[in-house]
Amino acid sequence: MLFHVRMDVRIPDDLPAAQTDELKAREKAYSQDLQRSGKWRHIWRIAGEYANYSVFDVDSVEELHQLLTGLPLFPYMQLAVTPLCRHPSSVREDDR
Amino acid sequence: MLFHVRMDVRIPDDLPAAQTDELKAREKAYSQDLQRSGKWRHIWRIAGEYANYSVFDVDSVEELHQLLTGLPLFPYMQLAVTPLCRHPSSVREDDR
Amino acid sequence: MLFHVRMDVRIPDDLPAAQTDELKAREKAYSQDLQRSGKWRHIWRIAGEYANYSVFDVDSVEELHQLLTGLPLFPYMQLAVTPLCRHPSSVREDDR
Amino acid sequence: MLFHVRMDVRIPDDLPAAQTDELKAREKAYSQDLQRSGKWRHIWRIAGEYANYSVFDVDSVEELHQLLTGLPLFPYMQLAVTPLCRHPSSVREDDR
Amino acid sequence: MLFHVRMDVRIPDDLPAAQTDELKAREKAYSQDLQRSGKWRHIWRIAGEYANYSVFDVDSVEELHQLLTGLPLFPYMQLAVTPLCRHPSSVREDDR
Amino acid sequence: MLFHVRMDVRIPDDLPAAQTDELKAREKAYSQDLQRSGKWRHIWRIAGEYANYSVFDVDSVEELHQLLTGLPLFPYMQLAVTPLCRHPSSVREDDR
Amino acid sequence: MLFHVRMDVRIPDDLPAAQTDELKAREKAYSQDLQRSGKWRHIWRIAGEYANYSVFDVDSVEELHQLLTGLPLFPYMQLAVTPLCRHPSSVREDDR
Amino acid sequence: MLFHVRMDVRIPDDLPAAQTDELKAREKAYSQDLQRSGKWRHIWRIAGEYANYSVFDVDSVEELHQLLTGLPLFPYMQLAVTPLCRHPSSVREDDR
Amino acid sequence: MLFHVRMDVRIPDDLPAAQTDELKAREKAYSQDLQRSGKWRHIWRIAGEYANYSVFDVDSVEELHQLLTGLPLFPYMQLAVTPLCRHPSSVREDDR
Amino acid sequence: MLFHVRMDVRIPDDLPAAQTDELKAREKAYSQDLQRSGKWRHIWRIAGEYANYSVFDVDSVEELHQLLTGLPLFPYMQLAVTPLCRHPSSVREDDR
Repeated sequence: MLFHVRMDVRIPDDLPAAQTDELKAREKAYSQDLQRSGKWRHIWRIAGEYANYSVFDVDSVEELHQLLTGLPLFPYMQLAVTPLCRHPSSVREDDR
Repeated sequence: MLFHVRMDVRIPDDLPAAQTDELKAREKAYSQDLQRSGKWRHIWRIAGEYANYSVFDVDSVEELHQLLTGLPLFPYMQLAVTPLCRHPSSVREDDR
Repeated sequence: MLFHVRMDVRIPDDLPAAQTDELKAREKAYSQDLQRSGKWRHIWRIAGEYANYSVFDVDSVEELHQLLTGLPLFPYMQLAVTPLCRHPSSVREDDR
Repeated sequence: MLFHVRMDVRIPDDLPAAQTDELKAREKAYSQDLQRSGKWRHIWRIAGEYANYSVFDVDSVEELHQLLTGLPLFPYMQLAVTPLCRHPSSVREDDR
Repeated sequence: MLFHVRMDVRIPDDLPAAQTDELKAREKAYSQDLQRSGKWRHIWRIAGEYANYSVFDVDSVEELHQLLTGLPLFPYMQLAVTPLCRHPSSVREDDR
Repeated sequence: MLFHVRMDVRIPDDLPAAQTDELKAREKAYSQDLQRSGKWRHIWRIAGEYANYSVFDVDSVEELHQLLTGLPLFPYMQLAVTPLCRHPSSVREDDR
Repeated sequence: MLFHVRMDVRIPDDLPAAQTDELKAREKAYSQDLQRSGKWRHIWRIAGEYANYSVFDVDSVEELHQLLTGLPLFPYMQLAVTPLCRHPSSVREDDR
Repeated sequence: MLFHVRMDVRIPDDLPAAQTDELKAREKAYSQDLQRSGKWRHIWRIAGEYANYSVFDVDSVEELHQLLTGLPLFPYMQLAVTPLCRHPSSVREDDR
Repeated sequence: MLFHVRMDVRIPDDLPAAQTDELKAREKAYSQDLQRSGKWRHIWRIAGEYANYSVFDVDSVEELHQLLTGLPLFPYMQLAVTPLCRHPSSVREDDR
Repeated sequence: MLFHVRMDVRIPDDLPAAQTDELKAREKAYSQDLQRSGKWRHIWRIAGEYANYSVFDVDSVEELHQLLTGLPLFPYMQLAVTPLCRHPSSVREDDR
């Protein structure tokens, strides 16, 4: 089941650089694990912004919520979730 | 080069049903041709709305504009275009 | 799986009264069938508006989309869908 | 009498962790007491957000206001209250 | 129990003048009956707009909804309802 | 002359509790004096929010501005002022 | 007493040209009479829009409402009224 | 050439009172000099807000920008600039 | 003097095709004349929308307003005008 | 390929003046290098705001994103990117 997520990141100015770096490294590893597992289907950077559009493929809303709230940068993110379904005109087997 | 597009469709109530059906059939054929050519990478229906999120892969903004304004339903659509680029955490080779 | 849906209805002024009545009767029957089947968990009128808040319990986003676009009044509705999950403080077994 | 409430929580970054934990524990107990008493009918987490949709069943607006402003996290919440009434299509006896 | 209501009226240009006049006359009579009964506590015109701020005093949300949807101009109105309660600083006995 | 005012209060988290208490006490006394004088006609709490709807009866916009900027909590308030006039359907002599 | 008013005009496409011309001529005469009487202090066109910013000098909100709703183009206008008062830094005697 | 400017002032809570007073005194002197020179045509306080509507009469956009960014309170202001021109119905010679 | 203008075009569905074609031809000729004269400095299509961003170079706001309201498609446009001035970092002599 | 970018700058009040000055100097040098290279086609100050409208000419969205996120003031900016294409009415060879 697919969900479209927009993530906007706002890291506070006063977070120490070392902590920011560590958070970003953990975020990257976390994201790549989920991408490799197939749960995090797509991630694209929005040009000129510290934000991304992502597509998740999960078994339930519950699972989606666990994945999103587990993001190391979650406390500094604003998320917008949109449920997707297969488009009747789609020709791609895996965009369901 | 990738662009995220949200398409909202509002067909006027007074458009004759036959014309609507013909437009939708042409829209579907047009979309599937572009999907098969690789230009229209993804299309997902937004649940509960007559709207979709799509991702296009084009050589230029000019080409994107030609593809979008050529949509049979374009006169009845509201489009929002967002330029994308590869996310530094992405592990998918083709989400560039 | 639960989804929160806000439905706003705007029936055009020039729709003949008989057609409006027939649509509303079909809408009511359609809604009550789904409520009895357990798919449409809750529906409340928003005071002073031709609108409702509803909660659906479905097996997939696909099923939700089919139920919503099958609404007899769907062409005259604006829908906003929000995926829900069980709240960690909830004590109700069936609000999952 | 039913009221729909959306609660968005924003705990300041500089609140000490111990104080945050204590607030959350009190919030959970407070919520569960009200749920068991039947005053707080439903609570669902909004996927991907530190927010919930709730439905309260109270005897008066006054009572609702007392319950909401008594929330331990109230100083860090933004609330939106919508009065509900029974939907003419509802088949559930207790969604009045 | 008090509710604050903002009413914005938009009568379509093509409604025949006689029908408009009859609707407005019925609206006025309906409003004045409710004012005299004490249900419609206050009504003020918003300067420069075809809109008003009103305060209703009702026994339930259900009753409020019946009163509002019974307005002769209801099909041409946009309503926004806000539940009120007594302000702790109020000195007026009847602003409860 | 009547003016409708919505007041939203946001007291900063780091204001010392003693100072907050003193401000609120002065605010209450200030408000009650104006209510007794007839200048501050109505004040209602908006359910679930630290906000109120009020109606002022003043001789001039100048007087209104003096009363509002004199509020002890004014530095922490956001105000929205709407000029009112007697509604042609009103039956209350004093809602002019 | 001064009020700032923004007026946006939207004349429907299907209003006959003769009727539009007559309305505009009456609007101009009405405006100029009020300007000469001193009630309509200022009127400026907003560049590139069919809209103006105006300042009225009236004895009461009631009078303002009468003047505005008497505008021949009022049925096709959207108005936003803001009460003004003398600025403490003003050096112009008549900007009170 | 005339420009309409809305200025909203937000002085941070933690600015020392002496610095605030000094800024306000300089702001007032700066404003009054420009008013006397004819560059700052009008300034009105918006009732109930720390904001004003102003009209500037300048020789160029460049000059306007210099005047506005020279305001002592500019770092704490949000400005919205709207270019004006003479209204075809205006009877005031100097509202050009 | 430079002004940034966003133009959004909405031609009504029921305008006869011949009239639409004639309007667009006149619009193009009008635009190209002004571009050649140097008054209409830049015009770019916004990708995927029937809209453009333009930059005008005029001697006064009055002249800008005359040029914009003279657009053959003006009755079907929504315009947003922003005054520009030379950026202190600009190295282009003619972006003044 | 052209992109329209609006940049709004908000430098925090508590950034030391020396650091602010150094950032601004680097920002200016960075901008002027890109302008001279032809990548940053236009930059205009928005009158009365700490903001600019710019037009970039890049080979890809990727390049645009690198240029924008490399801005010394990027951490304190809000950016909005709009893809442009040649307008069919344009007569300027280089506004493609």
